[in-house]
Amino acid sequence: MNKYKLLLAGSTVAIAGMLLLTNSINGKSEERKAINTSPVVKEKGVESRNEEWAKYYPRQYDSWKKTKESDKIDDQLTKNPQLPVLWAGYGFSKDYNAPRGHFYTIQDITNTLRTGGPIDAVTGPMPTACWSCKSPDVPRMIEEVGELEYFTGKWAKYGQEIVNPIGCGDCHDSKTANLTLTRPYLKKGLEASGVKLEDITHQDMRSLVCAQCHAEYYFKKTEWTDAAGTKKTAAVVTFPWANGLTAEGMEKYYDDANFSDWTHTISKTPMLKAQHPGYEMFKSGIHAQRGVACADCHMPYVQEGAVKYSDHHITSPLDNIATTCLNCHQETEAEFKAVVKTKLERKEQLNKIAMDNLAKAHLEAGKAWEAGATEEEMKDILQDIRHGQWKWDYSIASHGAFYHAPEETLRLLSVANEQAQTARLKLVSVLARHGVVDYIAPDFSTKESAQALAGVDMPKLVAEKEAFKATLLQEWNKQAVEKGILNMETRKGMSDNTSYK
Amino acid sequence: MNKYKLLLAGSTVAIAGMLLLTNSINGKSEERKAINTSPVVKEKGVESRNEEWAKYYPRQYDSWKKTKESDKIDDQLTKNPQLPVLWAGYGFSKDYNAPRGHFYTIQDITNTLRTGGPIDAVTGPMPTACWSCKSPDVPRMIEEVGELEYFTGKWAKYGQEIVNPIGCGDCHDSKTANLTLTRPYLKKGLEASGVKLEDITHQDMRSLVCAQCHAEYYFKKTEWTDAAGTKKTAAVVTFPWANGLTAEGMEKYYDDANFSDWTHTISKTPMLKAQHPGYEMFKSGIHAQRGVACADCHMPYVQEGAVKYSDHHITSPLDNIATTCLNCHQETEAEFKAVVKTKLERKEQLNKIAMDNLAKAHLEAGKAWEAGATEEEMKDILQDIRHGQWKWDYSIASHGAFYHAPEETLRLLSVANEQAQTARLKLVSVLARHGVVDYIAPDFSTKESAQALAGVDMPKLVAEKEAFKATLLQEWNKQAVEKGILNMETRKGMSDNTSYK
Repeated sequence: MNKYKLLLAGSTVAIAGMLLLTNSINGKSEERKAINTSPVVKEKGVESRNEEWAKYYPRQYDSWKKTKESDKIDDQLTKNPQLPVLWAGYGFSKDYNAPRGHFYTIQDITNTLRTGGPIDAVTGPMPTACWSCKSPDVPRMIEEVGELEYFTGKWAKYGQEIVNPIGCGDCHDSKTANLTLTRPYLKKGLEASGVKLEDITHQDMRSLVCAQCHAEYYFKKTEWTDAAGTKKTAAVVTFPWANGLTAEGMEKYYDDANFSDWTHTISKTPMLKAQHPGYEMFKSGIHAQRGVACADCHMPYVQEGAVKYSDHHITSPLDNIATTCLNCHQETEAEFKAVVKTKLERKEQLNKIAMDNLAKAHLEAGKAWEAGATEEEMKDILQDIRHGQWKWDYSIASHGAFYHAPEETLRLLSVANEQAQTARLKLVSVLARHGVVDYIAPDFSTKESAQALAGVDMPKLVAEKEAFKATLLQEWNKQAVEKGILNMETRKGMSDNTSYK
Repeated sequence: MNKYKLLLAGSTVAIAGMLLLTNSINGKSEERKAINTSPVVKEKGVESRNEEWAKYYPRQYDSWKKTKESDKIDDQLTKNPQLPVLWAGYGFSKDYNAPRGHFYTIQDITNTLRTGGPIDAVTGPMPTACWSCKSPDVPRMIEEVGELEYFTGKWAKYGQEIVNPIGCGDCHDSKTANLTLTRPYLKKGLEASGVKLEDITHQDMRSLVCAQCHAEYYFKKTEWTDAAGTKKTAAVVTFPWANGLTAEGMEKYYDDANFSDWTHTISKTPMLKAQHPGYEMFKSGIHAQRGVACADCHMPYVQEGAVKYSDHHITSPLDNIATTCLNCHQETEAEFKAVVKTKLERKEQLNKIAMDNLAKAHLEAGKAWEAGATEEEMKDILQDIRHGQWKWDYSIASHGAFYHAPEETLRLLSVANEQAQTARLKLVSVLARHGVVDYIAPDFSTKESAQALAGVDMPKLVAEKEAFKATLLQEWNKQAVEKGILNMETRKGMSDNTSYK
């Protein structure tokens, strides 16, 4: 009997042990599940306050906040004085700087002379659409008021609502933290270009969240009626992708729609302004063709102790060649830099040529009008200028196109210049026909001389902006703080650099 | 004692065994040495008969002979009728085909209308230098008569001597079979560009043997006195590399030397003809920068049973993507082809634009002269045309530049076109000053119309060539056979295709 007792006791211990083990395994599984389930930042809607995400994602937040380091104002109108002439009559002739870090999107849109000096919610030159790529408050507002209402009215309408710079809620779902497309216009653009949204992969998403803003778009005039029966007109951000993601495809799209962003004040050309077709240029290049995503190079993984996360200090990979480019490019940093330098030099050479000739074409066309040229004489010429400037702008307006798609950049710059020169050749004949021989365009070798040609009244623009910043802007911030959507602490130590003071 | 005897016998056997083993090891070593020592094809001088090399290198020879398959005549003047205008007054306006296999170099130089129809050793338009890249008989002749004597006289001087197409002796030493530079002008060019010949590596040599011919050169007029005291003038093949291997560097070299290949018969421009700066363009591209040699892609290794050798059927790697490109490019053949196709399309687009405008510039300049333009008025314009056409030609004259250096090709085509358009803009003013308004250049949309503008008398050229082929050429071949340097068997089954009959 003793033997049986012993066996029984042994079995009991074994069973108890197995139960404990099972429990432990289940426990570990629960633990794993908990670790791998993202905390809910907000149950419903978009959490636009970046600092709220910081509570759960401190490392990502800290790295994102390093975009604050990119605070230098690099005035492109001073560097390339052809620009005010090219954009005469359009906001960019007033103020245009090289891009800064994501941290500055709200400050940039507020400070730029392009948005003017509104004195209330219904004044100022720009529509609400101008906020669209600047803040996670945009998808929050679209959810709150609806897409068409969001796109109706003046930029100043949302000054007290759109206050947090590009951050977490622009790319991440506030409940699941998954990558998500918060901008309806990208989805529509993708569908127009033939992409099935259900086929989008995770690797696609690692570029598409960026493409929400780093893409070409225009403001499509859209009539609509609100719930109260009021007829309204919205300016809806729209991606012109129906003919594909190429400069020529979009040019055709705009031509077919008889669309122009503005009429050039010197040449009277119905112009197109390329925004920043970064995604489209990237797609035409070898990195995209080899399956590389934006995040692969602009958000490399960082190791901190046992934790690995992706760097949200989004900047040029050239600032961090060793942990980005050299992962694939098997060469030294010096060799890699030399290759990139040559690419940049080639682009700069063709860029300068094209800008010079486009600017001259505008000024020579202006002279032709002055001399009495007819619409009939000018029609083809203005079309050449429109198409040439579109291709030039398309090829250089986005970040790093010279690297993302060097060959496409050079091709477009070359064709842009050919179209500018074709216009200029025709203009010599038109001018001669109206008695103007050997005309030489006036000087545009400085920002000041170029802005004078473009009719930009800088003192007035700056005074308006300063007044706005001293009054309405203060009111916006006050209201946003009261509403609890803006934490002024997050702007602490922020410089207030601009190109104009 | 028995024990000692036994030990002694054992030792003796061991020593004998060791001696045998040593002998066997030495024998193996001798055998290895013999296997690894190339047979001597010719003890002294250059063996120019490719079939003599075939006795020792049958596989390499058989693969080389496959270059015979590339026998199609692809008339570039028909395909791009701008060309006869661009080259008016120069041989290329008469006849210019896409390159064929190495097997055809002698036939090509003999058949092309550019070498005309000499009737004896001192007639015909071209100098001896024209043979320089066509045959291993060239280094043989240079050794026999000296470099300056070789470069003195008319092309027809060596018809009975230079009879074997580009082959073994062009790149391999006849005694050691090592890669060797048989052309003195490459060595001089390298030294002028700052390369120390003693630093050249084996991998360098796998490109440099190709660079002997696939490079830019000109015929430098050189006065000299022979051993008998006779004053002579040589046209010496010279690489213009003293300012580096770039289009701009060589342009400066030629400008500084006040050199022109010919004077354009329509525009009176002192022109430069780019030959085939394949090596230079390749060096500016990413493959060269990553240490790839010509032979890596154009002469891949082939396995036949236990033997591995490099394929001497030199052609485009695109004919053999799987064993060439895909060794490094990790993608499918279809994906790879698509990338290359886009590169080619970009080049073709810019090439056509530049050719059109350069041709118009020549014709408009011709009209300006007609209208009474002065040297002073035309000077800058002709310089623009000279520089523009040089860059255009430089970027497309060599094989595969669009692939070897796509960005440099696009850059050069763009700048070429800018210079053409600058000339044309100036010409509109000059023409207007001389009473010519709205001038439109005559049609050059076919080879025939373009050759008429260029003053090419095809029936006369063809008749001269046919007469030459029926008479002097037969005599050359007869003499070469008698001398034992030409084996007519090697030309068996060779088609005699040309663009003109």
